[in-house]
Amino acid sequence: MTAFVRNQWYVAAYGREVGRALLGRTVLGEPILLYRTEDGRAVAMSDRCVHRRFPLSQAPSRLDGDRVVCGYHGFTYGTDGGCVYVPGQQRIPRTARLNTYPVIEQDSFVWVWIGDREPGDTVPPRAPWMDSPDYTVVSGMEPIDGDYGLLVDNLMDLSHETYLHGGYIGTPEVAETPITTEVDESAGVVYVSRHMDDAECPPFYAKSTGIEGRITRWQDIEYHAPCLYLLHSRIAPVGAPGPNADGSDPHAFHTEVVYGITPSTETTTYDFWAVARDFALGDQEVTDFLRENNHTVVMQDVVALNVLQQSLNTEKAGYQELSINIDTGGLAARRILARLAQAGTGQRSGATAR
Amino acid sequence: MTAFVRNQWYVAAYGREVGRALLGRTVLGEPILLYRTEDGRAVAMSDRCVHRRFPLSQAPSRLDGDRVVCGYHGFTYGTDGGCVYVPGQQRIPRTARLNTYPVIEQDSFVWVWIGDREPGDTVPPRAPWMDSPDYTVVSGMEPIDGDYGLLVDNLMDLSHETYLHGGYIGTPEVAETPITTEVDESAGVVYVSRHMDDAECPPFYAKSTGIEGRITRWQDIEYHAPCLYLLHSRIAPVGAPGPNADGSDPHAFHTEVVYGITPSTETTTYDFWAVARDFALGDQEVTDFLRENNHTVVMQDVVALNVLQQSLNTEKAGYQELSINIDTGGLAARRILARLAQAGTGQRSGATAR
Amino acid sequence: MTAFVRNQWYVAAYGREVGRALLGRTVLGEPILLYRTEDGRAVAMSDRCVHRRFPLSQAPSRLDGDRVVCGYHGFTYGTDGGCVYVPGQQRIPRTARLNTYPVIEQDSFVWVWIGDREPGDTVPPRAPWMDSPDYTVVSGMEPIDGDYGLLVDNLMDLSHETYLHGGYIGTPEVAETPITTEVDESAGVVYVSRHMDDAECPPFYAKSTGIEGRITRWQDIEYHAPCLYLLHSRIAPVGAPGPNADGSDPHAFHTEVVYGITPSTETTTYDFWAVARDFALGDQEVTDFLRENNHTVVMQDVVALNVLQQSLNTEKAGYQELSINIDTGGLAARRILARLAQAGTGQRSGATAR
Repeated sequence: MTAFVRNQWYVAAYGREVGRALLGRTVLGEPILLYRTEDGRAVAMSDRCVHRRFPLSQAPSRLDGDRVVCGYHGFTYGTDGGCVYVPGQQRIPRTARLNTYPVIEQDSFVWVWIGDREPGDTVPPRAPWMDSPDYTVVSGMEPIDGDYGLLVDNLMDLSHETYLHGGYIGTPEVAETPITTEVDESAGVVYVSRHMDDAECPPFYAKSTGIEGRITRWQDIEYHAPCLYLLHSRIAPVGAPGPNADGSDPHAFHTEVVYGITPSTETTTYDFWAVARDFALGDQEVTDFLRENNHTVVMQDVVALNVLQQSLNTEKAGYQELSINIDTGGLAARRILARLAQAGTGQRSGATAR
Repeated sequence: MTAFVRNQWYVAAYGREVGRALLGRTVLGEPILLYRTEDGRAVAMSDRCVHRRFPLSQAPSRLDGDRVVCGYHGFTYGTDGGCVYVPGQQRIPRTARLNTYPVIEQDSFVWVWIGDREPGDTVPPRAPWMDSPDYTVVSGMEPIDGDYGLLVDNLMDLSHETYLHGGYIGTPEVAETPITTEVDESAGVVYVSRHMDDAECPPFYAKSTGIEGRITRWQDIEYHAPCLYLLHSRIAPVGAPGPNADGSDPHAFHTEVVYGITPSTETTTYDFWAVARDFALGDQEVTDFLRENNHTVVMQDVVALNVLQQSLNTEKAGYQELSINIDTGGLAARRILARLAQAGTGQRSGATAR
Repeated sequence: MTAFVRNQWYVAAYGREVGRALLGRTVLGEPILLYRTEDGRAVAMSDRCVHRRFPLSQAPSRLDGDRVVCGYHGFTYGTDGGCVYVPGQQRIPRTARLNTYPVIEQDSFVWVWIGDREPGDTVPPRAPWMDSPDYTVVSGMEPIDGDYGLLVDNLMDLSHETYLHGGYIGTPEVAETPITTEVDESAGVVYVSRHMDDAECPPFYAKSTGIEGRITRWQDIEYHAPCLYLLHSRIAPVGAPGPNADGSDPHAFHTEVVYGITPSTETTTYDFWAVARDFALGDQEVTDFLRENNHTVVMQDVVALNVLQQSLNTEKAGYQELSINIDTGGLAARRILARLAQAGTGQRSGATAR
């Protein structure tokens, strides 16, 4: 099992999931209650009543204005976690207080800070395409019955696209083309790049871009351990001009594939997935196609990782894996996660403050 | 987990559940077979064949007169647990004998004695309304996937009616009105009273009694640890005369709410519930309403306690609860259960012999 | 739990189950991949890719000619278990090799050898009726959620037919008639015989043979520990001549009941069952009746053993069984299994080489 990394920001939900209904999520084993105040602020606090540990996200628990009323005996809490009402008496015990979690809402995600220390200046890494007017986004969340390390492994090595996602996003060239890997140890970021100069165009891109022939396909991964995974994907017809010196790239199609990889329990993971594109922005047909198609791809991963976890559960202690070149990025990610977990210090500075 | 209290009487079934079909129940972790002899006597014995431990309550096991025939190899037992037939030979091994359990059928319940000692003069506590001609009763049993201590907690503190059972039996006054608690340590009985002088009439009582305005509402709990819980409920219109000196109380409506709290395994509980009323005795509509309504209330508890047990299962060792005044009765019950469990002696004399 | 016996042949599948689709089976806790090469040979190898332990029997893993392509990242293996392709590089690591299993296809079964040693001259025991032109066979496989020892117990003591299978294959005489037991310790074979001279004809045989009155019924068990169980069943009308000196037996009906008892995990078992008959060979109605009827009988066992395992799971350590004469064969089988498990040597020579 991959160790939890504390003192870090994690994606707990999409902003659209957090509203005036009580939402319960478990992050790094901690049960968290999420809701939005009347003035629109997302708040996060312990999802267990101090009295008898009833989950505050469980009906008939409810909001009363900005206060949470426990559905079992009515203990009531403010947004600061402080208890403001208990049944049958006037005096509120001083210790009647829920732990609260720092929250940052950014790039369509609700990030919560899990740890013993305060986040201080540390901010979550960015995925600005998620709510940019220059991109159209499809997104969702699927729970995985597996260690979050399995999802990190999966995403760091895209050669699996050829096999697990053949007919969707995989073509032979993905598995065949070597990768380059760079690691920024101090920032806790792993970069993995695979540039295919002359590749088959998979249906995912052929149908959404309209390209009919072979393509130049770049896959540039940027993994900000532990939670944010970015895949900068660039597609252009073979022979089209490359990016300009100023960074503009009018002859290519870009998709920013974004994952929030959030450990829930030791054996379950939230897989927040999104695809942001800079083309066919208003085209609902393309949007519907990419949502449906990417959901299928995500579910191929979910099914495979659930099966893999089940298999690993029956392995004898000390079973062996065999790693090859394609695993360079994944192994680097594991090393960084192990280091961060041991430190538990949240020194990562991979995120750029806005 | 709340420790089991041995050398006590427990409700294993309603009398109506025990008949000529073999019934299996697990009480304090012990698998028990229940059936009724041809002359109508309820008997209880181990639900495991001495041969290969096949459950005798499992088809094709069956009754042959008053004898139980194991459905696997035909080992046959009399009502005293003694084996009277084995296949393939005449000689019956001397040790071929099932453990039997003392049984008392009383107040519509089939009580079994679980323990190493004999019950001697100890008899189960009484709930005479259950089969009195002066009362009409609705009752049932729901299994709970939780520690029986959670159900004891639940029932000892009725402030939860306001929140978990709002719109059914709960009104604001229940949570707001302080309680008085008395403990009879030697008898192992906890008394909790809440008298509301001027309270809203909840739908449960409004519809069944016909009272339209505000009420005097008394809730007098009597918990005979470990298994029997009685709630004497008195409802009258505000301003109506109180009980007479002779105990008669013609201006009030009385319901006797009875629970058998039977630990099944360490994580499951039988919740035997009943409501006996002294009004509208022959009114089927009221009977149907109270059965339906109280079943809904019981299921609200079952769902909440199942959820609570699931939550507690994921708590770290040494998690904290916070108790307040309303918990006085529940904490007293826990103390008595712990003392009885440790003693394991069954010294409780809270029951009055007939 | 009954200890696993290693260095033995086990039935992993029927030959008809092994084809050009990848089949996964778990034998003695080892995940095994089975398929048939293009020239028709059954092969067996580890069902876990060396890379990240993905199950090779899991879609989208697939065959490419005689090679297995892992559905996750495309690692590809030949029938000798050697890896012939990995993604993204030319060099194949030397350690990239799957463990393979010796396979013998015999008597309609695919046998695999589980152990550390090579099988050498050791061959599986025979059940020649399974693919003989002189017999018509019905067969199937049912998984059991129980220790394989429970199935061995079950089959070694047929007195249970009278109770668990009453109305199908059981009659009172089975339970009443004493058995004789012989054990060939060196060969690891247990023989249990029950000869009923004048017995009721159970529906299973009455309907399939057309016999209307009482019968002579012989049940001769031959258990080749650990995996193969044979029941030689002979049925004839009372008074009909017995077998001739040359072994021919024209006045009787013979069924050879064959079981492959294959431990899957510590708590699950494959129950391969078959009934081969030497009468009504071409009669589809008899075939359909025996298939349906025997499947019902097998499911009666499966349900009972699943229930029994559940019951045993909740027994306290050191619970007692009580054994009688009918258990002589089963106890002998347990002793042999324990001895073989401890030796782990596969010295059994109960099988006759072809």
